[in-house]
Amino acid sequence: MTINQNTDQVLAALAKQTVELPSWAFGNSGTRFKVFGTPGTPRDPFEKLSDAAQVHRYTGITPRVSLHIPWDLVDDFTELAARAAREGVTISVINSNLFQDDDYKFGSLTHADPAVRAKAVAHHVACLEVMRAVGSKELKIWLPDGTNYPGQDSLRARQDRLAESLAQIYTATRGDETILLEYKFFEPAFYHTDVPDWGTSLLHCLALGPRAKVCLDTGHHAPGTNIEFIVMQLLRQGRLGAFDFNSRFYADDDLMVGAADPFQLFRIMFEIVSQGALDPSSGVNFMLDQCHNIEPKIQGQIRSVMNIQEATARALLVDLAALGEAQREGDVLTANGLLMEAYSTDVRPLLAGLRESMGLAPDPLAAFKASGYEARVAATRVGGIQAGWGA
Amino acid sequence: MTINQNTDQVLAALAKQTVELPSWAFGNSGTRFKVFGTPGTPRDPFEKLSDAAQVHRYTGITPRVSLHIPWDLVDDFTELAARAAREGVTISVINSNLFQDDDYKFGSLTHADPAVRAKAVAHHVACLEVMRAVGSKELKIWLPDGTNYPGQDSLRARQDRLAESLAQIYTATRGDETILLEYKFFEPAFYHTDVPDWGTSLLHCLALGPRAKVCLDTGHHAPGTNIEFIVMQLLRQGRLGAFDFNSRFYADDDLMVGAADPFQLFRIMFEIVSQGALDPSSGVNFMLDQCHNIEPKIQGQIRSVMNIQEATARALLVDLAALGEAQREGDVLTANGLLMEAYSTDVRPLLAGLRESMGLAPDPLAAFKASGYEARVAATRVGGIQAGWGA
Amino acid sequence: MTINQNTDQVLAALAKQTVELPSWAFGNSGTRFKVFGTPGTPRDPFEKLSDAAQVHRYTGITPRVSLHIPWDLVDDFTELAARAAREGVTISVINSNLFQDDDYKFGSLTHADPAVRAKAVAHHVACLEVMRAVGSKELKIWLPDGTNYPGQDSLRARQDRLAESLAQIYTATRGDETILLEYKFFEPAFYHTDVPDWGTSLLHCLALGPRAKVCLDTGHHAPGTNIEFIVMQLLRQGRLGAFDFNSRFYADDDLMVGAADPFQLFRIMFEIVSQGALDPSSGVNFMLDQCHNIEPKIQGQIRSVMNIQEATARALLVDLAALGEAQREGDVLTANGLLMEAYSTDVRPLLAGLRESMGLAPDPLAAFKASGYEARVAATRVGGIQAGWGA
Amino acid sequence: MTINQNTDQVLAALAKQTVELPSWAFGNSGTRFKVFGTPGTPRDPFEKLSDAAQVHRYTGITPRVSLHIPWDLVDDFTELAARAAREGVTISVINSNLFQDDDYKFGSLTHADPAVRAKAVAHHVACLEVMRAVGSKELKIWLPDGTNYPGQDSLRARQDRLAESLAQIYTATRGDETILLEYKFFEPAFYHTDVPDWGTSLLHCLALGPRAKVCLDTGHHAPGTNIEFIVMQLLRQGRLGAFDFNSRFYADDDLMVGAADPFQLFRIMFEIVSQGALDPSSGVNFMLDQCHNIEPKIQGQIRSVMNIQEATARALLVDLAALGEAQREGDVLTANGLLMEAYSTDVRPLLAGLRESMGLAPDPLAAFKASGYEARVAATRVGGIQAGWGA
Repeated sequence: MTINQNTDQVLAALAKQTVELPSWAFGNSGTRFKVFGTPGTPRDPFEKLSDAAQVHRYTGITPRVSLHIPWDLVDDFTELAARAAREGVTISVINSNLFQDDDYKFGSLTHADPAVRAKAVAHHVACLEVMRAVGSKELKIWLPDGTNYPGQDSLRARQDRLAESLAQIYTATRGDETILLEYKFFEPAFYHTDVPDWGTSLLHCLALGPRAKVCLDTGHHAPGTNIEFIVMQLLRQGRLGAFDFNSRFYADDDLMVGAADPFQLFRIMFEIVSQGALDPSSGVNFMLDQCHNIEPKIQGQIRSVMNIQEATARALLVDLAALGEAQREGDVLTANGLLMEAYSTDVRPLLAGLRESMGLAPDPLAAFKASGYEARVAATRVGGIQAGWGA
Repeated sequence: MTINQNTDQVLAALAKQTVELPSWAFGNSGTRFKVFGTPGTPRDPFEKLSDAAQVHRYTGITPRVSLHIPWDLVDDFTELAARAAREGVTISVINSNLFQDDDYKFGSLTHADPAVRAKAVAHHVACLEVMRAVGSKELKIWLPDGTNYPGQDSLRARQDRLAESLAQIYTATRGDETILLEYKFFEPAFYHTDVPDWGTSLLHCLALGPRAKVCLDTGHHAPGTNIEFIVMQLLRQGRLGAFDFNSRFYADDDLMVGAADPFQLFRIMFEIVSQGALDPSSGVNFMLDQCHNIEPKIQGQIRSVMNIQEATARALLVDLAALGEAQREGDVLTANGLLMEAYSTDVRPLLAGLRESMGLAPDPLAAFKASGYEARVAATRVGGIQAGWGA
Repeated sequence: MTINQNTDQVLAALAKQTVELPSWAFGNSGTRFKVFGTPGTPRDPFEKLSDAAQVHRYTGITPRVSLHIPWDLVDDFTELAARAAREGVTISVINSNLFQDDDYKFGSLTHADPAVRAKAVAHHVACLEVMRAVGSKELKIWLPDGTNYPGQDSLRARQDRLAESLAQIYTATRGDETILLEYKFFEPAFYHTDVPDWGTSLLHCLALGPRAKVCLDTGHHAPGTNIEFIVMQLLRQGRLGAFDFNSRFYADDDLMVGAADPFQLFRIMFEIVSQGALDPSSGVNFMLDQCHNIEPKIQGQIRSVMNIQEATARALLVDLAALGEAQREGDVLTANGLLMEAYSTDVRPLLAGLRESMGLAPDPLAAFKASGYEARVAATRVGGIQAGWGA
Repeated sequence: MTINQNTDQVLAALAKQTVELPSWAFGNSGTRFKVFGTPGTPRDPFEKLSDAAQVHRYTGITPRVSLHIPWDLVDDFTELAARAAREGVTISVINSNLFQDDDYKFGSLTHADPAVRAKAVAHHVACLEVMRAVGSKELKIWLPDGTNYPGQDSLRARQDRLAESLAQIYTATRGDETILLEYKFFEPAFYHTDVPDWGTSLLHCLALGPRAKVCLDTGHHAPGTNIEFIVMQLLRQGRLGAFDFNSRFYADDDLMVGAADPFQLFRIMFEIVSQGALDPSSGVNFMLDQCHNIEPKIQGQIRSVMNIQEATARALLVDLAALGEAQREGDVLTANGLLMEAYSTDVRPLLAGLRESMGLAPDPLAAFKASGYEARVAATRVGGIQAGWGA
């Protein structure tokens, strides 16, 4: 069994990899049962950006931050963008919110009442304005719409209304702006969701036009779903727009990526790498979307980025030539063995080297912990209301 | 194909059936994404009891109410019990809360720190005092403890600590008091829960003694689990203490019982009926445990009770003699057909008749809606803070 | 709560409904552990047609039979078609077989070896010839291809090879012939299947042309999948070509339709009915695809047809006007209640009446059992090899 | 982050580890759709033993072979045992077969007919005689009994009959003989199985006596089940008798252990190692139970043994002292990180060294492939009927 011996190529690919951070990962989150607070949690978008910048400072591959509107609304987005720049990051994808307004109890873009749909569309137009104020080119729509009980609403009518609402939003975009439509198997709706699977998301994107793409979140699938197959299929269609990393054992657990099934993460990254989608020019935006309910949040983000890097490095180490030959010959065990050979390799030294070549500490987590940042913000961020999913 | 022709027997069994209501079903609930409020939602345990009493007024089979401590803490429980009596209901099972104190972030009865465990045990002793103040004999423990990440804690050490904590609680009970230990597959913990399945709950109950029994919640199982089998097995062991009704499509959705899979509910009730566990003397406490996130709560409870009654009536209509014969002969289609014959029967006229014989309106939901109660409480319950999972 | 009062309309819709029978349901089937034989099992396609005709004789709504090639290969298909006509049925969909040839161990239409792909394509051309010989217009392709181990083959390369193979088959069809592409979540492949979901099937159909449609088999989904949503979506795209009925508790159990979750079957039929797809002119071919491993096969088919009829009748009884109003008003409980009102209705008298108006016995199962057919074939079909999945 | 630095201790533990091989893994197996044959497949139990011995020859840790009765019935078991001895292995667990006799269509140990139950019990008595003839001390019972349709039989009556049948078998055992009762979630029965979960198996074992223990097969659980928790619980009860290794993506796929989720395998081995159950003196019998449907069987077994060794080595590398400290402190990320640190370590050099110290080739798979054994048996095992699940 062999692995890819071209270390330079592997390092070059790793050097180009980037991961986008979500501003909301730095605020408090939890379950319907309890949200635990932590000393030092940011109170506003500015402080979230500072925390996100820490992750970039120590990993070197997270130069972008996603915002969530209205959670990250500020009076002056120019000032926020400037703060980001000073911290060494940029503001990237803008995420809309369709689940926290009382009007959306029975739906937003799919609501039976045209006035509610219009409100939801208008919210996206406002998000587009934020994008233009901060220099973002991507609008991410996760549709929480759905129903809890059979018969509650017409599945078909909702789909038609959704198509109409999305078309209005798409019309409001400019030629260099992209819509990312995320799908989710269930939650917060428990009987049906209006965009439950990649197929539905893709159909809407195809109907909208070339600047609408699918966002795949690893936690948004039925048990047993082969996610790397979906990655392959969406790349084959040229419509994988974004990838939300996290991990799950049961439902949409939103645990740290790589924590539940590192082998699955490796298989996903292998599909991405082998289809050329790792390269930033591929147009796929790789992001974290997680909840650090009980672990320190900045540390949790750093660990997640490291997990992605390790999975990527292993994927890059697969000996593609040998693999192709074994596949053509129907040599099942050799083909599988070549994949496992790369997976079994300890890539931490390689990544430590990469970091040092970038002027970073070889162990980002240890370096961040040693920096004293956590104690500093815990001491200074006193008073005010800690940010969470509600603010 | 035949059904049970002994209508008197069926009606007699139905007339004895009771379902316990949870006080928290009348407060607001939701998902981690949003809790929607509703006009008229109770602001305190007294108002919750009034709402619960409405369900009993119209269905006639819900004379008991469960409380949740500390959500239902009042200064004077004698006064609360008196209010219940005036409303025509009694206070029954007391539920403890192990998931909302900051100290319980990493566990309660299983926590590595003896001081936290002692606090959690003491909370149950306080619950026992509430029980004695209100005349309740049952203490229900749902243990939300668990971990989110492999390695976070020792599965084994937590199990041993749990056994020790439970033993302390059991020791504090009197000879006529019962502990109900509920299991749950996952949530709020996402890697493991400390009482994830009926086997674990039963083992702890066996270790404690005869007054410890298992509480089965229909929503707390892995996908595909045959719940009626578990009902059978726990009844066979004499350890089914309580049954929490609700329904689910995906996770612990907490939808109205019978809304997602009425045939499963029928199969469960058939197991209960055919093992003689429907009779109150069996000692099994049947309860609702649901979240009415988007539907009116009192109506949702009434509908749920009706769903249980319909499933029960159908289960009672199975022709057991004919079924037994078909089973002995290995006549698969006849045996299955006899079950389906009862399931296909429209039992609503039978239940309407039962209600009329009890002096109730034949359609409880219509009668309640016509009563004007909802508008009345919406108009009068103004100001204050609506009750929810946090209060 | 109300139901549709227009009984004439309901009966008219039911009178037009048809269900296609699979020839292989009348042969032996089982699991990897054991196939149990039954006296009277057909030994050849002629005897299978006779058995299928019994189902039509007693239900009156199963005038068509699907064949499976090579299991149903005969020397003279004109003779087989004539036999069908004499029995009162016609031969309809032709199903290809891609899983029983040693050459297909690692794939058929997706195989890395062009020679194997050519063989698999040629098999479909042969199936088209059978179609023309028997007057069939539909070719159903269930692709069992997939891999058991990560890395065994390239997911992407297989998809491209599949597209090419399907295009060759499509090219071989005539302008009045349709291809039905079935998807399946897993089995016989256990890591990935090449057409695992409706999205993949639809994408291939879209690439092929208007005469390629998706076949949905109820048992071929991940746990928890909302199947009626997929029905809706495929109808919305005009690409639901066929529907394979059966039911499942766990995997692809292939139990009798309606046996595991009759409420799900009702919801599916409601989606079909409310989108106008029940009418034969809609072009959707409704079929049974089941395994009667332990129950009598003809009886099992009759029972399945009855289950579909009952679910359909209930779906037709939904009061659409009242439902639409409740949905528009966001009255969750009334909307759900209106669906449940129809579901709770006992439609057996209605269907008995329909049958009598068609000159049939009101209880098809009892009538068939009383006919003595089973004893007759058990006595006369002696010797030879009973048909099964291998022949 | 650290790992266990005591390499001697790790190597000592690995040197004592053994894995039992199933004779049936060397015969053909497949799905209900197709069983593919392979040149060189054994035709009888003697040839199966020869193949199993190859695995031991190259891995050095598989000195025992399980037999399956009647598949491995021979006229003279003394001769078979002698052959095993000559090949360097011993015959160990005897597995009964309750799924291939026509009498068992509706059950075996649970059948409604006492005569069928008596036959099934007698089969186990015969298995005990085989055990005594070959020097085995363990009888494994996997109960395939169950039903396909609700109502088909009484869940409760079957449980009672099972208890009675098991008691008869247990009575027939001697004081140094153990019964291993395996549970399975579903298949071949699709509505319910009579021993579906660890709880049911354990209850029967507790009722039988101390020489009845649970057999856990990794593929026999509902989706999402935390298997290492069950391992912990059964060890805590002193009732984990045997462990059947394999892996699954969907159902009971019976793929090579470690192929689907190597991290899960590591977590399981960590639970085993940290509870002292790896040591042979613990009494837990670790076995393979897999189907090599498409890959070479001997190679598949060797690869599986290597996968177990790698997972075990990683589990032994966890720094337990540091882990315990992090757990006590509630340091989630450090605790999880310590586990991952061991998991990320490349243990292949360590295991190569272990093999060399045992006089074995460092790469067992390469050594076996180079030996020419496969070509030799393919050339010589000509004629006869290849062994499979039916023989």
